[in-house]
Amino acid sequence: MMELDEQKIIQSWRINAGSWTHAVREERIESRKLVTNQAIVDTVMRYHPATILDIGCGEGWLARKLTERGAQVVGVDVVPALIERARQLGGGDFQVCSYEELAAGRLRRQFDAIVCNFSLLGNESVTNLFAAIPSLLHDGGHLFVQTVHPHIACGDAPYADGWRPGSWTGFGPEFSDPAPWHFRTVASWVRLFCTSGLTLIELLEPLHPETNKPASIVFVGEKPEVESFFETV
Amino acid sequence: MMELDEQKIIQSWRINAGSWTHAVREERIESRKLVTNQAIVDTVMRYHPATILDIGCGEGWLARKLTERGAQVVGVDVVPALIERARQLGGGDFQVCSYEELAAGRLRRQFDAIVCNFSLLGNESVTNLFAAIPSLLHDGGHLFVQTVHPHIACGDAPYADGWRPGSWTGFGPEFSDPAPWHFRTVASWVRLFCTSGLTLIELLEPLHPETNKPASIVFVGEKPEVESFFETV
Repeated sequence: MMELDEQKIIQSWRINAGSWTHAVREERIESRKLVTNQAIVDTVMRYHPATILDIGCGEGWLARKLTERGAQVVGVDVVPALIERARQLGGGDFQVCSYEELAAGRLRRQFDAIVCNFSLLGNESVTNLFAAIPSLLHDGGHLFVQTVHPHIACGDAPYADGWRPGSWTGFGPEFSDPAPWHFRTVASWVRLFCTSGLTLIELLEPLHPETNKPASIVFVGEKPEVESFFETV
Repeated sequence: MMELDEQKIIQSWRINAGSWTHAVREERIESRKLVTNQAIVDTVMRYHPATILDIGCGEGWLARKLTERGAQVVGVDVVPALIERARQLGGGDFQVCSYEELAAGRLRRQFDAIVCNFSLLGNESVTNLFAAIPSLLHDGGHLFVQTVHPHIACGDAPYADGWRPGSWTGFGPEFSDPAPWHFRTVASWVRLFCTSGLTLIELLEPLHPETNKPASIVFVGEKPEVESFFETV
């Protein structure tokens, strides 16, 4: 049985799918436009993956960008209204698929790269997904996770993992029903990589040019080649 | 030729060796007493190293603690007055040795673990030391680095690597000649590990019980077994 807070996340995206699509396509999210969109595209493409799985692809902008750069991209999202909008613009193979279905092996194929761009918002759903990531990657393949920077997102609250109330502040009046999200420390993110059998090979903190503080954090994990992989699990 | 700021660091420790020894032995540094001393001892001993090199050991408290826990410990520091004080209490094999001498292979032996506890304060000296760390570790051995947490230590300055002015604020009037220190972002610390051929296997952020913010950051790197090590360099 899925935790209530996990259900609320999905429910919120179902309700806000249309507003979100407009916000992304009109480039209304300043930090994405200024920093984090370019950061994730550049980081992924530096590794030259031929095949990419975009988990939590939303309306599909990142899949389209990566397709433009020559990759073959599958985008998955649990919200049908977002996948519908992604398919309207094309530039990727878009499928409705939950993190639970991914973890259960529904895709039956492996990729050179997996990218999760601000799409890991829950607790158990994320832990379970990480456990399944190696089965979705070729040996030597890479997982790219971009998320809010824990030290910026923490605010005045204790610096510890846990559910936090959500907010659409700054997104406009057309957004409603914000969902809670699960805060993770940097230490906790690193632990997710290491315990899933991935080697953390990069950690990036793209700077916001106006604040000179990190606009996000990007983790790059590598699935070891077979021999050493079995040593670590 | 050593950078002027690197020279100033060593000069400051020469001048303050006596005051520092009193401050440590009288447990006058609150965050060490409350959090970071226990954090580094516990983290190192979780890996059960039989032999440990304590780089920048100062007056030797950590070497003594690790010796009490059953390890055979070599402590090195470039400041003769600190090594002299360390030898007076014993609990380790203490030697005057600079980071440059370590990097040049002066020790001619390998350890199960290397620990740098708030002792990596410079720029080039640290980069050069990291390059030499694998030669000082057995295959499968570990490097433990505890340092100020970049997100706390950054303050209002831009979050970017660079030299910062030093201060002995809070240490008392007997301290003088604070040296500059080289700020590194979390991303920059992780890069040091990865580019030196170490696998980052843990990142810890021990919490200060009063502020509920990180009191420090601890990185644990592992020297891969021979085959995979040669693949990464």
